[in-house]
Amino acid sequence: MLGIDTNIFPHTAEVNEANHLVIGGCDAVELAQRFGTPLYVFDEITLRRKCREFVQEFVQRYPDSQVVYACKAYINPALARLFNQEGLGLDVVSGGELATAQKATFPMDKIYFHGNNKGRDELEMAVRLGVGRVVIDNLDEIELLNDVAKASGKAQAVLLRVSPGVDPHTHGHTTTGILDSKFGIPIQTGQAEEAVIQVMHASHLDPVGLHFHLGSPIFQMEPYQEAIEVTMAFAAAMRERHGLEIREFSPGGGFAIQYTEDKPPPRVAQYADTIVSALHENCKAPTLPPPKLILEPGRAIVGQAGVALYTVGAIKEIPGVRKYVSVDGGMGDNIRPAIYGAKYEAILANRMGDKNRERVTIAGKFCESGDILVEDVEIPHAGPGDTIAIPASGADCLSLASNYNAAPKPPIVLIKDGGAQLIRRRETFEDLMRCDLI
Amino acid sequence: MLGIDTNIFPHTAEVNEANHLVIGGCDAVELAQRFGTPLYVFDEITLRRKCREFVQEFVQRYPDSQVVYACKAYINPALARLFNQEGLGLDVVSGGELATAQKATFPMDKIYFHGNNKGRDELEMAVRLGVGRVVIDNLDEIELLNDVAKASGKAQAVLLRVSPGVDPHTHGHTTTGILDSKFGIPIQTGQAEEAVIQVMHASHLDPVGLHFHLGSPIFQMEPYQEAIEVTMAFAAAMRERHGLEIREFSPGGGFAIQYTEDKPPPRVAQYADTIVSALHENCKAPTLPPPKLILEPGRAIVGQAGVALYTVGAIKEIPGVRKYVSVDGGMGDNIRPAIYGAKYEAILANRMGDKNRERVTIAGKFCESGDILVEDVEIPHAGPGDTIAIPASGADCLSLASNYNAAPKPPIVLIKDGGAQLIRRRETFEDLMRCDLI
Repeated sequence: MLGIDTNIFPHTAEVNEANHLVIGGCDAVELAQRFGTPLYVFDEITLRRKCREFVQEFVQRYPDSQVVYACKAYINPALARLFNQEGLGLDVVSGGELATAQKATFPMDKIYFHGNNKGRDELEMAVRLGVGRVVIDNLDEIELLNDVAKASGKAQAVLLRVSPGVDPHTHGHTTTGILDSKFGIPIQTGQAEEAVIQVMHASHLDPVGLHFHLGSPIFQMEPYQEAIEVTMAFAAAMRERHGLEIREFSPGGGFAIQYTEDKPPPRVAQYADTIVSALHENCKAPTLPPPKLILEPGRAIVGQAGVALYTVGAIKEIPGVRKYVSVDGGMGDNIRPAIYGAKYEAILANRMGDKNRERVTIAGKFCESGDILVEDVEIPHAGPGDTIAIPASGADCLSLASNYNAAPKPPIVLIKDGGAQLIRRRETFEDLMRCDLI
Repeated sequence: MLGIDTNIFPHTAEVNEANHLVIGGCDAVELAQRFGTPLYVFDEITLRRKCREFVQEFVQRYPDSQVVYACKAYINPALARLFNQEGLGLDVVSGGELATAQKATFPMDKIYFHGNNKGRDELEMAVRLGVGRVVIDNLDEIELLNDVAKASGKAQAVLLRVSPGVDPHTHGHTTTGILDSKFGIPIQTGQAEEAVIQVMHASHLDPVGLHFHLGSPIFQMEPYQEAIEVTMAFAAAMRERHGLEIREFSPGGGFAIQYTEDKPPPRVAQYADTIVSALHENCKAPTLPPPKLILEPGRAIVGQAGVALYTVGAIKEIPGVRKYVSVDGGMGDNIRPAIYGAKYEAILANRMGDKNRERVTIAGKFCESGDILVEDVEIPHAGPGDTIAIPASGADCLSLASNYNAAPKPPIVLIKDGGAQLIRRRETFEDLMRCDLI
């Protein structure tokens, strides 16, 4: 990567006179010095623009739309508060994510509680806090949730997660909408219909609609079309046979972002076109009145806004083989290359103009050969103390972060107009041992 | 798996009259109820036996041996204390692991500090605390460490990590001793010799010997033989050309354990036979007097001692396709199946005698299709509330644990003679947000 591609870097990314990367008006090299590295930087402008882009692209085509942020990409209280300001709901998948929303005093009625194996304690917490929707994933959960709702004396609004049996053609680890999946209730086996009947007869469940999620990231439009067709045909049949009114429908998320120069994703507008058209084609009153549309982007909201900053340490050139540039983070804070074979770009943030470049491999500092952040990337000659920036790091890095090799998790700063707000401090060695009882 | 295989389960594993799994004299089902699940259980007898087996197998063949536990497999203060009682040293790879050793008042002279990119702060900490050996991984580190040692006014004893260029035939993520690796200084490029010269001329470094690590787990003996031959030939040449005395030699770790019935590993005695024979063959006074031998097992000490306990939640049977049994943990506490394609056995700990079995897939509760703990395993018909035990979970599970989906990390109990000591408590939601600043 030679310049700054603002399809990959945050929208505010630029280069200053010192030839340093600037994001949100902040010199990235100064941020690295001030807060230490590894450091994760979130650009507030990009975050808010992404929220607004999703809301606008869907609402203009389908006014009865609600965008719900999928927390699994990454959440903390500061981000939850920002998403609330932007009018988004939250898709949570655990008691812990629900606790984060609670900490941010997030409106509970805008929370969708997903998950293939929610515990009774988690469902009790959800019902007690009054989450808007519990998304039921399986037959066992119907009885369990009804029990919990009954004990609390209130009816819980629910969506049913169905499995439409459509392959989104993405990584096997993140393919969820096919028949052989731990997620959702298959339509084609008749089990989804059984679930509809059970939910409609449950004393304390209020069935509001249907949900599916195909996987992530999805670069093609056909899987959405096909899955909406299958699911709306099922919805129409359920309405006719059992009187189920589909007031809400969520085709999940899976919206791709750009990680590398050679793989541009579809625009949000294309996803919106596809999903809204498919919905209009397949939902027509009086057979099936169009439901409220729920969208669940995660990565597509936070991915591009986040940049990871690292400091270069050891350089290892193996003549004729490879040059390794080691940085002070790695698979502890970003396990995506190791687990999904994920590809990233990388730049030398303190020498942006330098055209004297070479091909290197950026290695992490973790004790494992798989700890490679970027294989074969062209950057200027790097040496100890240089600052490496890896863009598109806002999603699925911090959420999957570990304390492998007893490495403290990195801090996060939210940047805007030249100001940097620390929204999460770096862990200390003491934090790591807080739960240890000797 | 029909019965209990004590090559995979801890040595103390048995079945009681209630047909429950018993480890260390504790009923696993009662442990699950008392401490909650997911729960990691370490059997003290197995831990200590493994330590003693390594010490004995090597010392009886080669008296001048020292076994050093590789913390990356998993460490906390309680375990560090136990390893100290057994006379082991510690192989640490970061300031965090060093802080853990310090917390356990581990003797610093028995600590080996590894890592491909140690930071100046980490080296300063190591020199200040007086760690026994810093294992230098690259040319940049020689100057950096010498600087740090000089500033503190003392000489630091070091090993040089060389890369012998030998393929151990294991997973690519964990193959380290080949030429194209971020680890070690290649012998065949001449860089290792350059490093020897630099270290010998460094004012505050005391070169004590050589180290290599091939990868992990290694099931074959030839890579050890070959790498020792290459490294000792290099050592002899360095002694002759530069007068370097090799007082210590560490062929690293990589010793395999048994995860599944169909893949038994070599015995510790075989590794010891191979390594000691190769050392004797290749080190003969007066050319090369036999050095002190350092062994670095990690997984092989803690792997078999650890058992993960989970509670079954949702069951999903997709007719003709697969039956998913979901548990309350998963890739958050054990990412090995997702990242390395690791295979495990699993048993139903509360119905050990049940012969009415079926083939299921054990899924975690994390929002990702890749979150499968065991694919296709035969267990009795399981339902919500049953206890699943996954053996051989002591290594590389908790060390790589994340807070994905905002899941708190599980607690750990150390069990012995029917007593259970909580050595790490479960994280709370508050712990997860302790570093968040809103």
